[in-house]
Amino acid sequence: MIQVGIIGAGRIGQVHMKSVASGVPNAVIRSLADPMISAQAEQMAKGFGIEHICGDYHEILEDPCIDAVLVCSPTDIHAKISVEAIRAGKHVFCEKPVDHELTKIDFVEEALKASPKKLKYQVGFNRRYDHNFRALRQAVLEGKVGDVQFIRVSSRDPQPPHAGFIASSGGLFLDMMIHDLDMIRYLSGSEVEEVFAQGAVLIDPEIGAAGDVDTATVSARMTNGALALIDNSRKAVYGYDQRAEVFGSKGCVQNANDLPSTMVLSTVDGVTAEKPLWFFLERYMASYQAEVRAFIDSIEQDTETEVGIFDGRRTIQIALACKKSLAENRPVRVDEIKA
Amino acid sequence: MIQVGIIGAGRIGQVHMKSVASGVPNAVIRSLADPMISAQAEQMAKGFGIEHICGDYHEILEDPCIDAVLVCSPTDIHAKISVEAIRAGKHVFCEKPVDHELTKIDFVEEALKASPKKLKYQVGFNRRYDHNFRALRQAVLEGKVGDVQFIRVSSRDPQPPHAGFIASSGGLFLDMMIHDLDMIRYLSGSEVEEVFAQGAVLIDPEIGAAGDVDTATVSARMTNGALALIDNSRKAVYGYDQRAEVFGSKGCVQNANDLPSTMVLSTVDGVTAEKPLWFFLERYMASYQAEVRAFIDSIEQDTETEVGIFDGRRTIQIALACKKSLAENRPVRVDEIKA
Amino acid sequence: MIQVGIIGAGRIGQVHMKSVASGVPNAVIRSLADPMISAQAEQMAKGFGIEHICGDYHEILEDPCIDAVLVCSPTDIHAKISVEAIRAGKHVFCEKPVDHELTKIDFVEEALKASPKKLKYQVGFNRRYDHNFRALRQAVLEGKVGDVQFIRVSSRDPQPPHAGFIASSGGLFLDMMIHDLDMIRYLSGSEVEEVFAQGAVLIDPEIGAAGDVDTATVSARMTNGALALIDNSRKAVYGYDQRAEVFGSKGCVQNANDLPSTMVLSTVDGVTAEKPLWFFLERYMASYQAEVRAFIDSIEQDTETEVGIFDGRRTIQIALACKKSLAENRPVRVDEIKA
Amino acid sequence: MIQVGIIGAGRIGQVHMKSVASGVPNAVIRSLADPMISAQAEQMAKGFGIEHICGDYHEILEDPCIDAVLVCSPTDIHAKISVEAIRAGKHVFCEKPVDHELTKIDFVEEALKASPKKLKYQVGFNRRYDHNFRALRQAVLEGKVGDVQFIRVSSRDPQPPHAGFIASSGGLFLDMMIHDLDMIRYLSGSEVEEVFAQGAVLIDPEIGAAGDVDTATVSARMTNGALALIDNSRKAVYGYDQRAEVFGSKGCVQNANDLPSTMVLSTVDGVTAEKPLWFFLERYMASYQAEVRAFIDSIEQDTETEVGIFDGRRTIQIALACKKSLAENRPVRVDEIKA
Repeated sequence: MIQVGIIGAGRIGQVHMKSVASGVPNAVIRSLADPMISAQAEQMAKGFGIEHICGDYHEILEDPCIDAVLVCSPTDIHAKISVEAIRAGKHVFCEKPVDHELTKIDFVEEALKASPKKLKYQVGFNRRYDHNFRALRQAVLEGKVGDVQFIRVSSRDPQPPHAGFIASSGGLFLDMMIHDLDMIRYLSGSEVEEVFAQGAVLIDPEIGAAGDVDTATVSARMTNGALALIDNSRKAVYGYDQRAEVFGSKGCVQNANDLPSTMVLSTVDGVTAEKPLWFFLERYMASYQAEVRAFIDSIEQDTETEVGIFDGRRTIQIALACKKSLAENRPVRVDEIKA
Repeated sequence: MIQVGIIGAGRIGQVHMKSVASGVPNAVIRSLADPMISAQAEQMAKGFGIEHICGDYHEILEDPCIDAVLVCSPTDIHAKISVEAIRAGKHVFCEKPVDHELTKIDFVEEALKASPKKLKYQVGFNRRYDHNFRALRQAVLEGKVGDVQFIRVSSRDPQPPHAGFIASSGGLFLDMMIHDLDMIRYLSGSEVEEVFAQGAVLIDPEIGAAGDVDTATVSARMTNGALALIDNSRKAVYGYDQRAEVFGSKGCVQNANDLPSTMVLSTVDGVTAEKPLWFFLERYMASYQAEVRAFIDSIEQDTETEVGIFDGRRTIQIALACKKSLAENRPVRVDEIKA
Repeated sequence: MIQVGIIGAGRIGQVHMKSVASGVPNAVIRSLADPMISAQAEQMAKGFGIEHICGDYHEILEDPCIDAVLVCSPTDIHAKISVEAIRAGKHVFCEKPVDHELTKIDFVEEALKASPKKLKYQVGFNRRYDHNFRALRQAVLEGKVGDVQFIRVSSRDPQPPHAGFIASSGGLFLDMMIHDLDMIRYLSGSEVEEVFAQGAVLIDPEIGAAGDVDTATVSARMTNGALALIDNSRKAVYGYDQRAEVFGSKGCVQNANDLPSTMVLSTVDGVTAEKPLWFFLERYMASYQAEVRAFIDSIEQDTETEVGIFDGRRTIQIALACKKSLAENRPVRVDEIKA
Repeated sequence: MIQVGIIGAGRIGQVHMKSVASGVPNAVIRSLADPMISAQAEQMAKGFGIEHICGDYHEILEDPCIDAVLVCSPTDIHAKISVEAIRAGKHVFCEKPVDHELTKIDFVEEALKASPKKLKYQVGFNRRYDHNFRALRQAVLEGKVGDVQFIRVSSRDPQPPHAGFIASSGGLFLDMMIHDLDMIRYLSGSEVEEVFAQGAVLIDPEIGAAGDVDTATVSARMTNGALALIDNSRKAVYGYDQRAEVFGSKGCVQNANDLPSTMVLSTVDGVTAEKPLWFFLERYMASYQAEVRAFIDSIEQDTETEVGIFDGRRTIQIALACKKSLAENRPVRVDEIKA
């Protein structure tokens, strides 16, 4: 059994607590740390029989029984905690993004290289573990699509974040599109070489006032020659819209949204199916469990994590290139972005 | 070029007029007969360049240039005109049903046997020529379904006929379900052996007062051992609902309704597709042309028509068995029904 | 917290063990009884922290700390255990069917009436708790379908049981169609009045040799006047096929199968979606949890269970009517079947 | 009745011949001109009763009985014939593109302005008249989508043209994507302001050798602030892929491909639907008729054509901007492109 410590008991920390407790058979949560834990989180932790609940995550790092930590803290200390955990000899699962700055991600990479133990590090790009996206990747790997020539990802949130969140979020490209930038890498098995971004403020003027956009597209060129298109919106009134398509020399795979049920109602008004599941917690719950299960397995079996520090760094680099492209209205090569 | 005479210029006569004029390349309409032709039909006929328009259909039967007639008269004289046309040496396409009485259908069969010419006779079961149903039949013929074990047909009209029509129609089984009874024969390539019918008056009490039902189901056993289920309703508020399914040892084929467009609208209210095409004229227009094209081809190439007098007779026999089953609340073997 | 004892640690017992342990927050499994428990089940029980594992279920019935029992024994002792549990003052969740004989079900009903405590009794018709079927019921309850006029249920297994199982199973109507018979009651909110069954042996001659059919249809008339059709097959090569449709004066609701993913692959060979989830454990897992959650809630909140002993008895009565109908080839009124 | 002359009897000339003859009730084809008419086209013309067949289109322009001409000549004389026809006082329906050079399109515009008669001029953007695309536009016009924020068009051919065709075609942007560039204008009701194009040679190296690309994407910014994405491929092995999506403040509309039938086959290999209709002649046949019907109506009713010389010119200007963007790897404002 892998002994796990969870650092951070906010929304995503609670998701992982529940996931691990109910569906990761070879892991047990030993400790939970949060300096300002909510009563709800504390009660949940007790319900799951978590013995150690503390304010200072260093207690977890210093506990020799802990094999691995899940970093669910605020983004700005992801990298710091990662480095400390690595130095303490713990395997690390870190929520995305590792950081908004490449320099700080580099510190994590260096800590990993410097570690005498072969530690596992996984970044929380949970969508790679979602059934609908994994099925596309699997079809590509099995050659059903042939040579990948074009990838498209549509990703739309049901509602925009509070404008107050925008400032600390890094903006749409770093906070939201980062999943899609990783997705075109994952689906194509190729790297992003150059991007061109367009953006607009069409939903909430306050988002514009905060210096961000709420609607954006990216045109990308992959190193294998394939082209990719991404579209993002902060507000799809019909719910969370999460779709992708991979087109190649032998065929095309697409996925569609998950729905609460397959019911279809036919009346004088039309033939109506259900709306997509509302947002990421409803839609991706199973993937949060699957990614941690994969992390634990990679520790137990001593295999590479599927999405590591390289992916965490590269995706930030691409997002920063998108930001630069939008600011300068020109295509930007990803390797223009240096730490 | 096959010279065609059309007998009857009502709704279905006009459909055939238009079909032949615009899409049956090896046929030309030479004459049209109707004792009470409407101004609209007459104008349409002139627009299509039909030269002879007459009141008495015998003029068509006596015209030696006419090769084939399309019988689009009221149902009660279908058989009479068929016999006369056969005796006049014409190939006959007769709208369904040939007649409500087996005895009168037998006269047609006898006339065909007695004819010195090898005349073609086709009954207007147009749905056999519809793309969605023909695709199912084709899949069965190609062995994709394996041995047929179960067939289901759902057939629902968008609105009931006037109660006044019920009396002369022969009732739901003879007027409406007759298409579905032929369809389970067509799709399975097997005969109906025994039927059990249930019916109810759930839509329009006047239909009940006229001695008919507006909602009905039939359970059938086929001679190859397969089972079949049919459901009919006189009123589906969302439009004409026309679907079938064939299930067998190797798989299952189903079809769905045809829609005005593939558009899907997602809003706060749901994800809405278009309703089915409204009724049989919208839905089956192409099949009316295809069946006459097949009829003309079978004359030119001297091949058997795909749906002949035997099918016309057999289907009536099954419909009468359904009627008897409903009346007596017991399963009825089709061969109980004699002329 | 409701203290639960599980009686029977076979396949379905394990399903409930897992369900309750991981997703019924207000229940805790105190004991598990099975006279021949497998090593796998024992290990699972220990993994979930179940303290008492015994061979004799009477230990559970005699434990004053136990509030409720889940009866997951072989079918032939469902009724016996139910009666004993009721007499011991326990709430009972009993797997379906309660028994194949109405007399034995009546003993359960009498025990419930005789109990001084207002005990809850729920029968395991899990499909009522499935998202796709519950959505149809909800639409009917909300009036979206109007007056229900027709219900259809298609239910096909991916593979037939061993012929050896057939004898003890009670046959297709009692073992398999019983879910669908309950479903037409559930979806319509009305009772079955009369049934007509057809059956055939088209898949496995050994099933026929065992005196059963492997393909069957039922035509039913409901007390509210609606008609219903059910089709069953023991072998759909493409997987578990579970669909229903409710048609009424204001519209029609249908559901479709659940799939492993929404992926669609377009190639030169066609446009291919995934097959349905393989069988009931994959397909209905969530419903097994939901039904027990509802049972526990009805205990806590002292409300009626949604599917009680009356439903368990009535559904057996209908299944027996279907059996009689098939044997005698005639429609059978459900009230012909007496205890 | 509008008297029509058709100039050019190649593939598209034959399509219009057939369309007008069989389904444009208020038009009659009086003449057909082609300097090198094929035997097939001549026979077709005779079959439709077209009286005048000539080599020199000037005969049509000089015929005072002719009201309107359909210009179906090679692209490089579209503009020349258009100007001559306008000067001869004829209404003109001109196949797309009017020309590859803005200067030559300007001559047509000037001729129209100079004409003493208020002549109709329509450009053959037939997809505006297709049921699936028109349904999207209609939904936008009815406000169902709210303010348009994003448009996506996917357009993929089933097979690439001969490399020999590439040189004269003007390349992918002018020959193929031009439809999609018009489509984003049509669907959004807004103009394209700036474009960024990416392209690749992934299918046929000969296309690359001819200086063109076979795979391309365009990112566009519309004047109303909306963003648009287009993807094109010269070879989708599963057939002609023609889809669009319009996303806005109140919802999203999408369409899907038209299929030969709605049949779905479920087997051990999956659940398979039909491939899209093969190519533009199968897919868009009805739209060719609808666009000419609209042209004839606009003459009869003296209304503006829905897609006129302005649209023909503007779309070329955008396509030229895309070409420039690809060549210079930078976003290009459409107004950078001057005659």
